[in-house]
Amino acid sequence: MQRKSIGILTKPKFPEVKETLQSVVSWLRAKNIVAILDITSAALLGETGGIQKAQLASQADVLLVLGGDGTMLNAARLAGERGIPILGVNMGGLGFLTEVRLENLYPSLDRVFANDFVLDERLMLKTHVHRHGETVTQGAVLNDVVISKGTLARMIELKIAIQGEFVTNLRGDGLIVSTPTGSTAYSLSAGGPILAPAVQSLVLTPICPHTLTHRPLIVPAEAEIAVTLTSKDDGAMATMDGQVGVAISQGDTIEINVSEHRTRLIRFPETRYYEVLREKLKWGDG
Amino acid sequence: MQRKSIGILTKPKFPEVKETLQSVVSWLRAKNIVAILDITSAALLGETGGIQKAQLASQADVLLVLGGDGTMLNAARLAGERGIPILGVNMGGLGFLTEVRLENLYPSLDRVFANDFVLDERLMLKTHVHRHGETVTQGAVLNDVVISKGTLARMIELKIAIQGEFVTNLRGDGLIVSTPTGSTAYSLSAGGPILAPAVQSLVLTPICPHTLTHRPLIVPAEAEIAVTLTSKDDGAMATMDGQVGVAISQGDTIEINVSEHRTRLIRFPETRYYEVLREKLKWGDG
Amino acid sequence: MQRKSIGILTKPKFPEVKETLQSVVSWLRAKNIVAILDITSAALLGETGGIQKAQLASQADVLLVLGGDGTMLNAARLAGERGIPILGVNMGGLGFLTEVRLENLYPSLDRVFANDFVLDERLMLKTHVHRHGETVTQGAVLNDVVISKGTLARMIELKIAIQGEFVTNLRGDGLIVSTPTGSTAYSLSAGGPILAPAVQSLVLTPICPHTLTHRPLIVPAEAEIAVTLTSKDDGAMATMDGQVGVAISQGDTIEINVSEHRTRLIRFPETRYYEVLREKLKWGDG
Amino acid sequence: MQRKSIGILTKPKFPEVKETLQSVVSWLRAKNIVAILDITSAALLGETGGIQKAQLASQADVLLVLGGDGTMLNAARLAGERGIPILGVNMGGLGFLTEVRLENLYPSLDRVFANDFVLDERLMLKTHVHRHGETVTQGAVLNDVVISKGTLARMIELKIAIQGEFVTNLRGDGLIVSTPTGSTAYSLSAGGPILAPAVQSLVLTPICPHTLTHRPLIVPAEAEIAVTLTSKDDGAMATMDGQVGVAISQGDTIEINVSEHRTRLIRFPETRYYEVLREKLKWGDG
Repeated sequence: MQRKSIGILTKPKFPEVKETLQSVVSWLRAKNIVAILDITSAALLGETGGIQKAQLASQADVLLVLGGDGTMLNAARLAGERGIPILGVNMGGLGFLTEVRLENLYPSLDRVFANDFVLDERLMLKTHVHRHGETVTQGAVLNDVVISKGTLARMIELKIAIQGEFVTNLRGDGLIVSTPTGSTAYSLSAGGPILAPAVQSLVLTPICPHTLTHRPLIVPAEAEIAVTLTSKDDGAMATMDGQVGVAISQGDTIEINVSEHRTRLIRFPETRYYEVLREKLKWGDG
Repeated sequence: MQRKSIGILTKPKFPEVKETLQSVVSWLRAKNIVAILDITSAALLGETGGIQKAQLASQADVLLVLGGDGTMLNAARLAGERGIPILGVNMGGLGFLTEVRLENLYPSLDRVFANDFVLDERLMLKTHVHRHGETVTQGAVLNDVVISKGTLARMIELKIAIQGEFVTNLRGDGLIVSTPTGSTAYSLSAGGPILAPAVQSLVLTPICPHTLTHRPLIVPAEAEIAVTLTSKDDGAMATMDGQVGVAISQGDTIEINVSEHRTRLIRFPETRYYEVLREKLKWGDG
Repeated sequence: MQRKSIGILTKPKFPEVKETLQSVVSWLRAKNIVAILDITSAALLGETGGIQKAQLASQADVLLVLGGDGTMLNAARLAGERGIPILGVNMGGLGFLTEVRLENLYPSLDRVFANDFVLDERLMLKTHVHRHGETVTQGAVLNDVVISKGTLARMIELKIAIQGEFVTNLRGDGLIVSTPTGSTAYSLSAGGPILAPAVQSLVLTPICPHTLTHRPLIVPAEAEIAVTLTSKDDGAMATMDGQVGVAISQGDTIEINVSEHRTRLIRFPETRYYEVLREKLKWGDG
Repeated sequence: MQRKSIGILTKPKFPEVKETLQSVVSWLRAKNIVAILDITSAALLGETGGIQKAQLASQADVLLVLGGDGTMLNAARLAGERGIPILGVNMGGLGFLTEVRLENLYPSLDRVFANDFVLDERLMLKTHVHRHGETVTQGAVLNDVVISKGTLARMIELKIAIQGEFVTNLRGDGLIVSTPTGSTAYSLSAGGPILAPAVQSLVLTPICPHTLTHRPLIVPAEAEIAVTLTSKDDGAMATMDGQVGVAISQGDTIEINVSEHRTRLIRFPETRYYEVLREKLKWGDG
């Protein structure tokens, strides 16, 4: 497949982003490849124009991310329905989702245009928040959906059901429903296990559960998960990928299902998942 | 010592509180013991009058609590400086702090007036929140001080020092500084150990720490703990005993020291700490 | 399908086993169903004869277990290759694998012979222990393979690889490789998550790892797991389903793969997995 | 105080031990300080003579350790009753107990002889194993007493009592009773908290407990702990500081009390406990 246009998503707060952006745009234009920028990135280059961020993926063949894992989550949402491949260039430390270190940017782009890469397909979740029979919010996530108590509340109560079967009532700070991709993010801090990317399952990780025997629960990816807020708790929230939050009220139900879309990450075969894991978790030599 | 007056603190939401209050007030008055009520309790009895809750302990020889462990935390704060003994009557399920089940109320009161009990002295903590060199809040707690992120924030950053020595920077949902009494409350849900009541130590329990090797840390009760919020986080809070919360800002320091006051719980020798623990944690026969 | 013969496996140490066995054998014979007993069970009835336990499944259409979850693990190994259905009757407390309480024995048998049940197929693992290029032991498990240090050793060192890719060196008490079925057994005590039975994944749970960031790892069921003992440790063992142990030496590699056979548990639709979980883990009302 | 003789304990397996030993003995003799060697160390130098290791502390004013934390545990046992100060020189990586890196050996010795140091006193535990009313073993530990199952056993059952009060029955792999010093060793791997060295408490950490609500328990240092093996388990052991093990049988009781002796570690004020903790646990910048 020939890649003719490339959308670029940046996280301006990282150092070297502006310089890298200038350089990569010149490099692409010299090759007659269209570089599609959003308004923020265009402004970084001192150019007027640029399109809405939400439109970045609609016209591009590939999405190039200059940022960190948070920017990748953003890219996953943008790329979502069209499923275009995403190449992540890490502008900060090592990332789970960004594939390429800055010094390897151009050789990596060459390989992308030479179709010398593999696609690592990652599960995504669809989330619907239902209130009085209506859907008040919906969204897709690559990492996790977090249902959490408000700051002032001492505890939240949630009723969890899977495939319509009652699982348990959970009292505590909240619940994380995470994909394998998200299992190394917030879920891990809350005591959850690591799910290798190829695993076709989700993990429900309770946050500071009042009942000590409430433990992380792994369910098949196709499980239909319904979480209902049963306590009165003014500040409770459902948060998607740590980026989009919606206030929820007593009686609201959050439905979580696997998405028909996948995030497609551009990978080079020499990159090893467990090598990244060893470095990020400082496993050293054991 | 002769007990002539008894302050009564109630948690009206529990069933049977009104009926029990009527009965116990009559019982006390028949014995010429002054029953001191706050405005809420007086209203429950259909009486006008009653004093401010904050004054309940100032005139009483003993504090009688009709409620649960939450009401006991409240009573500890009221009794604080005068150190008057507190008798907890459990109106709900089993409690760690309430000593007496409702059906044993009158025999227990008889024993109190016969001085047939022991005092179980519990550590309390003093908390001061400093901002720009000034103390903006202070308070005493029996259970814990919790420093936590706002609902919308992804993470909070705290700098922890003990006796002026830097311990670590902590990123995560927050930190719990707990007494032995509080160790079976929120700290336990966050992964902390159980501290027997006689232990003269505190536990610092991180909440969902980003660095997985951040573990609960036990320090001597007399340690001077200083926790500084180093991240910009609009909704961060310091919460005392889960009841009083204060918003904190970047640069604020929460100082936590053992209090010179103790909470004095009325205990009967036949009550066993580990028996309560076994029942509350459902240890069964192991 | 018509069930004409039923093998019976008993755990004689449970109370009521002898009496139940007598009764069920009479019941079956009255219906012209062949009851196949092993030597132990025959002796319990005061009969001579009976076959080797290892032969129980070879001639039966169904395996009936009078015992507990340990007896079920035994039955799974016996039934393994032929894949005959197993009905577990719990002679002790509630079990994860035994389906039927003793008081429901005969109605349940009636339903089995009426084909009124569902088969719950559970993953099994094949284990091979390799030494100097030869296979010294092999076996199948329903719950878990445990590689653990000897009693006198302070620590064991294991090298873990998945699909030939190096994952990590692990130092600690050992490693549990568990199926979803085994996830509520030893793995849970070692800090592992719960895997719902339908999950097509395995969990590798480190036992008391020296490196605190070694956490339970979920991998696809078809992962090829190789664990090599790299330390000199005289008492190290590989144990299958907690029942069969083999001494291992430095350099030995334990290969673990999903089996082509499944354990087939007879279930009645009204039994709920999460209901059993709530009761066994005392989740109460949350 | 004038130090005239120095006992030297070595761990010969570390690299550079022989060379360091030669050098330090010459250095000491040049200063007319008696260097007391055990038989192993004397042999390392090619000298005949040397005394029994058990006698090393009986004639020395200071104990110098060339080794790691394991050698320090050994030294603590030797120094025990006489309470002579111990200086640990780390021949391997960073240690919790060894104070000095090899490159600082001579400046540190100069400071020791100039009395320019502080003594860091650490709690020790006395252990007695009772069988049929007799004491079959006793010993002192600096880190921990571990009561653990045999390799073949699936579980051990222990009855725990404190001050004669029944605490719980524990089923699982075993129990660790640890000092603050030992809290960063095996107990940490088993899920225990970190106890700062100044804490006057012990921690009882269950190893893979069957009941998930069995959690680490902190008790005052002066608590009298009695652990009775209630299961039949052929290979069960009580192990002191990971070095001395004794087989235990059903009915044996292990009594653990704080020792009247302390281990006295030579410290230089610029060494910081939390700095070592940050480095060992790779806390980084949080």
